[in-house]
Amino acid sequence: MKWQLFFNPRSIAIVGASPKKGKAGNAILTSLLRDNFPGKIFTVNPNVKEVLGITCFPDLKSIGQVPDLAIVTTPPEHVIDLLHQCADTGVKAVVIITSGLKEIDEHGTHMEEAIARIAKTSGLEVIGPNCIGLMSPLNRMNASFAGRLPLPGKIGYFSQSGSVMSAVIDMARSMDIGFSRVVNIGNKAHLSELDMLKAFADDPETKVIAGYLETFDDGDNFIRQAERISPEKPILLLKAGVTAAGARAALSHTGRLTGSERAFDCVFERVGVIRCASINHQLDIARAFAYQPLPQGANVAIIANAGGAGIMATDAIERENLQLAVLSDATIDTLSTKLDNALNINNPIELQGNIFADDYELALRQVLDDPGVHHVLAMLTPHELTPCSDVVQAIIRVAKEKTGKPILACLLGGKRVEKEVKQLNQAGIPQFSFPENAITTIKAMVNYSFWRSRPKRVVKLFPVNRRKVEKIIERHLKDGIREVVDIEVKTILDAYGFVTPKGMMAASPEQAANIANQIGYPVVLKVWAPGIIHKTEVGGVKLGLTTEEAVKDAFDLMMYRIPQVKPHTKIAGILVEKMCDKGQEVILGMNRDPRFGPLMMFGMGGKLVEILKDVAFYPAPLTAEEAKEMLISTRTYNILAASKGEESIDIEVIAEGLQRVSQLVTEFPQIKELDINPFVVGREGTTPVAVDATIILDIC
Amino acid sequence: MKWQLFFNPRSIAIVGASPKKGKAGNAILTSLLRDNFPGKIFTVNPNVKEVLGITCFPDLKSIGQVPDLAIVTTPPEHVIDLLHQCADTGVKAVVIITSGLKEIDEHGTHMEEAIARIAKTSGLEVIGPNCIGLMSPLNRMNASFAGRLPLPGKIGYFSQSGSVMSAVIDMARSMDIGFSRVVNIGNKAHLSELDMLKAFADDPETKVIAGYLETFDDGDNFIRQAERISPEKPILLLKAGVTAAGARAALSHTGRLTGSERAFDCVFERVGVIRCASINHQLDIARAFAYQPLPQGANVAIIANAGGAGIMATDAIERENLQLAVLSDATIDTLSTKLDNALNINNPIELQGNIFADDYELALRQVLDDPGVHHVLAMLTPHELTPCSDVVQAIIRVAKEKTGKPILACLLGGKRVEKEVKQLNQAGIPQFSFPENAITTIKAMVNYSFWRSRPKRVVKLFPVNRRKVEKIIERHLKDGIREVVDIEVKTILDAYGFVTPKGMMAASPEQAANIANQIGYPVVLKVWAPGIIHKTEVGGVKLGLTTEEAVKDAFDLMMYRIPQVKPHTKIAGILVEKMCDKGQEVILGMNRDPRFGPLMMFGMGGKLVEILKDVAFYPAPLTAEEAKEMLISTRTYNILAASKGEESIDIEVIAEGLQRVSQLVTEFPQIKELDINPFVVGREGTTPVAVDATIILDIC
Repeated sequence: MKWQLFFNPRSIAIVGASPKKGKAGNAILTSLLRDNFPGKIFTVNPNVKEVLGITCFPDLKSIGQVPDLAIVTTPPEHVIDLLHQCADTGVKAVVIITSGLKEIDEHGTHMEEAIARIAKTSGLEVIGPNCIGLMSPLNRMNASFAGRLPLPGKIGYFSQSGSVMSAVIDMARSMDIGFSRVVNIGNKAHLSELDMLKAFADDPETKVIAGYLETFDDGDNFIRQAERISPEKPILLLKAGVTAAGARAALSHTGRLTGSERAFDCVFERVGVIRCASINHQLDIARAFAYQPLPQGANVAIIANAGGAGIMATDAIERENLQLAVLSDATIDTLSTKLDNALNINNPIELQGNIFADDYELALRQVLDDPGVHHVLAMLTPHELTPCSDVVQAIIRVAKEKTGKPILACLLGGKRVEKEVKQLNQAGIPQFSFPENAITTIKAMVNYSFWRSRPKRVVKLFPVNRRKVEKIIERHLKDGIREVVDIEVKTILDAYGFVTPKGMMAASPEQAANIANQIGYPVVLKVWAPGIIHKTEVGGVKLGLTTEEAVKDAFDLMMYRIPQVKPHTKIAGILVEKMCDKGQEVILGMNRDPRFGPLMMFGMGGKLVEILKDVAFYPAPLTAEEAKEMLISTRTYNILAASKGEESIDIEVIAEGLQRVSQLVTEFPQIKELDINPFVVGREGTTPVAVDATIILDIC
Repeated sequence: MKWQLFFNPRSIAIVGASPKKGKAGNAILTSLLRDNFPGKIFTVNPNVKEVLGITCFPDLKSIGQVPDLAIVTTPPEHVIDLLHQCADTGVKAVVIITSGLKEIDEHGTHMEEAIARIAKTSGLEVIGPNCIGLMSPLNRMNASFAGRLPLPGKIGYFSQSGSVMSAVIDMARSMDIGFSRVVNIGNKAHLSELDMLKAFADDPETKVIAGYLETFDDGDNFIRQAERISPEKPILLLKAGVTAAGARAALSHTGRLTGSERAFDCVFERVGVIRCASINHQLDIARAFAYQPLPQGANVAIIANAGGAGIMATDAIERENLQLAVLSDATIDTLSTKLDNALNINNPIELQGNIFADDYELALRQVLDDPGVHHVLAMLTPHELTPCSDVVQAIIRVAKEKTGKPILACLLGGKRVEKEVKQLNQAGIPQFSFPENAITTIKAMVNYSFWRSRPKRVVKLFPVNRRKVEKIIERHLKDGIREVVDIEVKTILDAYGFVTPKGMMAASPEQAANIANQIGYPVVLKVWAPGIIHKTEVGGVKLGLTTEEAVKDAFDLMMYRIPQVKPHTKIAGILVEKMCDKGQEVILGMNRDPRFGPLMMFGMGGKLVEILKDVAFYPAPLTAEEAKEMLISTRTYNILAASKGEESIDIEVIAEGLQRVSQLVTEFPQIKELDINPFVVGREGTTPVAVDATIILDIC
């Protein structure tokens, strides 16, 4: 995307400029003029002579030069024609403000498809339609009707919704937050969030990327780009439209448990994108990233002039799983010597209500110098006897000198601290009215900092027999069979290094008994017939057979009974399988998300998985660390880890199992869902067994 | 408490009034004068002639009349003496501002005990010490140094922390929220939160009670009062000081799982107290209760002029488990006829960005008239073309006419909507900058409304054998034994209607075999010896014995082996017990909270209870509905409810079991902890069995 043309154009043409107040073609021109756009402005409208003192051209060509950016504000019926005009004239960047297309009817959808086609064939780039424009405060460009230009700053913002963009700008203004660029991407007929992400990544004026999205057009690609960009610039997304995906028509446990929200959460986590819960959450965090250094750890020191405030902040620290910094002996010594009337010199440091600014400054300097402190929250609860303004000046002074650690401020108050709040904000010290919001922001900074310094991702590749799997899958796809079962699931799992229960097909009771004698008792018999998926329902499974006679009886009973229930089924044979040793049952699963690709799942196995919902998700391919992290984030892990002595469960093999599944589903995108359930794990040193599994292919 | 003397005094004496700025005795007088206290003000200080133009009396007696309220601001060393003076003069209400007592050292603690004693013996009532005073905006009384008097309003606020009180007042001012009374209760030497609760309950000017607390002095009593008052006036508490109670020295699973936070949550829930997460949460909700009617249900209608805003509100509704109201056909017909350019006429109703105020007003009236709507969230995202002021006037107009349902407003914006926000607030329509906060507030209102209309609590009393239990407990207490085990636990449970496994004590292998033959196989043998609590560890439990011979062998092996492990133990006998049928294992438990009394627990039984943490708590005594609610709130319930056909589990009997335990622990406050684990529940129609149980008594 040629983002300079959009965000720093030398000339702009308003196509459909209108003298009528209330029309988009008037509002945008008004904004450009009012906020003193320094470039050239052309207006195009064949029906009027001039708009707001600017002479109108009847069409783009008549301008006689090619504007960097064209903004189309005409009614929908002229849009396609005007886009062709743009292409013909050599315009490269177009914003279509016009609404009433895809969001109204099918005709509009077709028009947007046409817009995309024209853009692609002619090399045009198009933002919109159905948007309220874009802004570039750094260049004094306000080509929108979202209100006055915000303060210039380091945050690049894109929004799918025009109203949210308006609201964000207005809220940011009252928080003294500035932006590098703000853009409403609207219906995304051509350029989308993906292009904005890349543009803001390239834009040297943008330090923090934030966006509001309702839908993802190309999730997979977005995520790949986000992963590339996140280490350089934090990406803060507000994803709205949380829908109860409801009972989806998935066949596997994993499929039914992967809600769309969980997909977003785990994918965002993997690529370092910070998911924001609301606009204020997003603005709080964006500001902190824009003005403060990254923290080197999770230890927070609190300075307050009152007990209550410190307690509330400490509560929030505990809820967010951050750490209250343990101050060094040196720090405590100095503080106790010099601040003899402090109420508490252990973190949270509690100074007297009618504190002196000097004491506050001293305390702040001391904790910032303490190597065990990564973050400082400077709190102040002003009452009549508090020298509020002096304390705030002290905070600003110290922050200017000591720039290595993030300093956030929290003035608990409203009207009384308005002036000081503004001073803090303007000095780049993020200020919060409530300690909870400050701590939530610190949490986001710590998470991002940890994510950035995570070890390099290395996905282990196990030696496997890929060809074998390929053959099975190809045959299924050819025959239009979506569910892979039994012997063939076993073959696939074997090929990827899983141990499945020993077993063979038998054609007669004698053969079944022979197999049982060979593999050892107890065994299980399972009917093998194409078309019978749920074997138990037709009496096609018999567990725990311990003698030759029992095996023969079970065989004959199946051959006699099943045809009575399912008359037209051909029984291909009966599988004689070794019953597996007792162990802990877990589930290893995968569900392919339509936007983000394969999501791995781990949880407690058996029938209870969907009820207990104690499961973890993470996008494939998994590294060893990620597989381990998935385990640890479940309660099931605690149960496994609590096993001791003779019953101690081998946890490492589960992580390996997850990685093997991850490799399988990465190498075979045709696999849509997969459950290994139960995956039975025994004591350390024993081999886990994939007792049962389902693989669903994508055949549409 | 004679609250009129504190909140509406005709005369106030400032004891320790000081001409020095920065002194409490100066600041409070300044506040009283500045905010025009209409009553009489006396100043008392033997060392100065006058303060701020008011002549000082040398002592209280010299005033010549008894002030309604005395405010003591002297250094700590004079406090006791002055309190005696107050008592002698006939003063009934005293506020001690003085700090430096209990919060500093033991001497201070003793002084506070003395304060409480003097108060009790002389009939004085004392607020403080270590507080910043109190305010009564309705009476123009500002006896504090918390800042200017807030707006008069309907919210009564008490705070343990002076700084939080200051902050609350200041924040409320910027939100245009008013108060009836505001008081800082400080160290609570005499009057506490309990007295404030009762005072606000009696005070006709207070409609909503809110408070900030760090510690509870008399939790049990507070809760009893809260339960009485909640139906009349909503009580909103911000309880700070969330501590990880850590691994407590509890003996039962229930004890280890009952964190202090869970105790607060479930006790508050039972008595209708609304727990607030932060000051802004509290102020938001308090304002809504103060100015809006209670909702009759959970169905929320949203009106917006933009998609994004409505989506964010809908997300929040889903997260909070509220309902998006389904509009009636009549409403939809009217809206679609009259608002032909609306983008969506189904809830959330989405009007055009450049909406007309008339349309907004029409939509608002329509949804308020719809019987399926209980709540309306009127949203507006202003941009350049939005007639924001007109829309807000329309909202205010409609809200004045239609007062039956709560109307909350959300203007997404900052600076641009400042004027309109103020107009809404002043019209009593709570305004929120973010949809999430509005929805959280609606949730609190709905919860409270549901709580108020809950059926009358009827605790069923089962016929039990109380005398039997009394005897066992008395004997244990006499002997100083805190853990009741085996036979005696069984006797207690039997007496309260539980079925325990059949069994008898045997003194010889033959007797054991006879018992086994009588009660039927399989049986379990358990050693019975005082001092052996964990039987399994000494080989004192043998499960699944199916023959006479096996019983005899097991008996002799125990008699031979246990003395080798535990040489000085006298084996009293061996218990032969019928093994119970298979079923679902759950846990029924109780832990007595030091503040709030017995808390019942339900969860999945067995060893996993502490790891899975799928448990529910509720204070005893339980009604049938509450017992049922406890079950339903767990995932374990889903597992039980999912059981079908032959394996279908009887859920009703679990609720009954909980009620019986509730009765037991209510009738015997000596029981400190109790676990029935596992409580084995079988198919419908079968009787559940209390297989194992622990009862811990309070012997300190």
